[in-house]
Amino acid sequence: MPSTLELLEEHRLFGGWQQRYQHASPVLNCTMTFSIFLPEPKSDAPPPVLYVLSGLTCNDENFTTKAGAQRVAAELGIVLVMADTSPRGDDVADDDGYDLGKGAGFYLNATQAPWDRHYRMYDYISEELPALIADNFNVGKRAAIAGHSMGGHGALMLALRNPERFTSASALAPIVNPCDVPWGIKAFSHYLGDDRSQWLQYDSCWLMRQAQQQVPMLIDQGDSDQFLADQLHPERLQQVAEEMGYPLTVRIQPGYDHSYYFIASVIEDHLRFHASHLFG
Amino acid sequence: MPSTLELLEEHRLFGGWQQRYQHASPVLNCTMTFSIFLPEPKSDAPPPVLYVLSGLTCNDENFTTKAGAQRVAAELGIVLVMADTSPRGDDVADDDGYDLGKGAGFYLNATQAPWDRHYRMYDYISEELPALIADNFNVGKRAAIAGHSMGGHGALMLALRNPERFTSASALAPIVNPCDVPWGIKAFSHYLGDDRSQWLQYDSCWLMRQAQQQVPMLIDQGDSDQFLADQLHPERLQQVAEEMGYPLTVRIQPGYDHSYYFIASVIEDHLRFHASHLFG
Repeated sequence: MPSTLELLEEHRLFGGWQQRYQHASPVLNCTMTFSIFLPEPKSDAPPPVLYVLSGLTCNDENFTTKAGAQRVAAELGIVLVMADTSPRGDDVADDDGYDLGKGAGFYLNATQAPWDRHYRMYDYISEELPALIADNFNVGKRAAIAGHSMGGHGALMLALRNPERFTSASALAPIVNPCDVPWGIKAFSHYLGDDRSQWLQYDSCWLMRQAQQQVPMLIDQGDSDQFLADQLHPERLQQVAEEMGYPLTVRIQPGYDHSYYFIASVIEDHLRFHASHLFG
Repeated sequence: MPSTLELLEEHRLFGGWQQRYQHASPVLNCTMTFSIFLPEPKSDAPPPVLYVLSGLTCNDENFTTKAGAQRVAAELGIVLVMADTSPRGDDVADDDGYDLGKGAGFYLNATQAPWDRHYRMYDYISEELPALIADNFNVGKRAAIAGHSMGGHGALMLALRNPERFTSASALAPIVNPCDVPWGIKAFSHYLGDDRSQWLQYDSCWLMRQAQQQVPMLIDQGDSDQFLADQLHPERLQQVAEEMGYPLTVRIQPGYDHSYYFIASVIEDHLRFHASHLFG
């Protein structure tokens, strides 16, 4: 039985429609919200979809309101789907830290109590949400994925594990090696337990070494990012890509930080990168 | 003695810098905050400035984070100054309504207690803020002004009263006839008292009839704007412009509402309109 979508708001935007929906999520066992940008059709062919995953503390609205991506999506004819970053609701487990619990789902399936009741963001993003989009909107089969920070981790990890599902993946200031940085170690310990072998399936550096199939990837990283030295380490994934001959481009952007001002400055390139694969 | 600016934050953005400053305002008798976008220099000539005034409930950050104007300002070489919408601080008079008091200064000089102690936004925007910008940044003498809703009222009204100061003015969903719509009547009654002859100096429809000097003007208005019928009435200003031969273009944009999604969709045209006059 397909979930029913409840339209929360909609706005005309760049000739298309920006909408926000609520739906019951059987996978996450709670009510979820997502935002979608539907461009004016460019042709009779149903448009492809770019899934966008946000970072810690965000929900579906941060990228929607601040990134400025819809202008380019409208030009290119790409549907944007902005997902939330965790399960939501009063009965969903949470933590006082900004980097655990609500707003910090890390796009994984938790195995440890109390998180395992709701935190199944991996299944939600890889299965439930795409099915919901396919059932309710006129979209094509091709999809790409992008994300920022924790959402950059999600985008790269999901593409590495589902190369048949995504034509391309891109990330802004992503966490590429969560098994070995403080944010990832904290989250994975709580969500997945102490057996670190269980963590590897969510670590892009490890996944890229195992990859049988390649997904073109683009990473942009500001060199004034306050989290670069401790949490992000794009050079680690770049090294794996070089060793494995994986098609990853890493661009270091001088002076940019971790904020949405950085995202806004480079997002057009990401949309055009995805378009070259979605329409290729 | 020029006020001292305190830098609150700065971010690299589209090759330039987005900054936020706090300063003591002798005019408003409180501490004020503004945001500024400084594009990468396009030439040796100091860049012109576009002042941006926001609407009810906003501060300097709404346009800064949501409009996407800096991309075009960077391309054109225009400095953007985003002002606050009222005096601020614990000892500034306020009201429970969203359309009176803080966040609702209406860009006028209040004459009635308790508002007259701080609410002198007309002097702040027309005199104090431009002097502060000229003293502290490398900017040229040319300036233009734009605004949304209440800020659209401010932009048009300030340009009509100071035609020598602005090369051009533009507005998104502006209040053009505050003397005769509910928002304006409420605000002007409180700030200016019951003598309606004192209101006219802040009413764009009245001011345009008296204009000795013309400032090119552009208005964009969405036809699905929830405030169009009761509060905005751009056709009233358009009629005055036609009668007076005033250079005003009014564009009705089908399907757009009053939100920042509307602003984002048309702001590029406003920047290019101002550029044609700032650099003309």
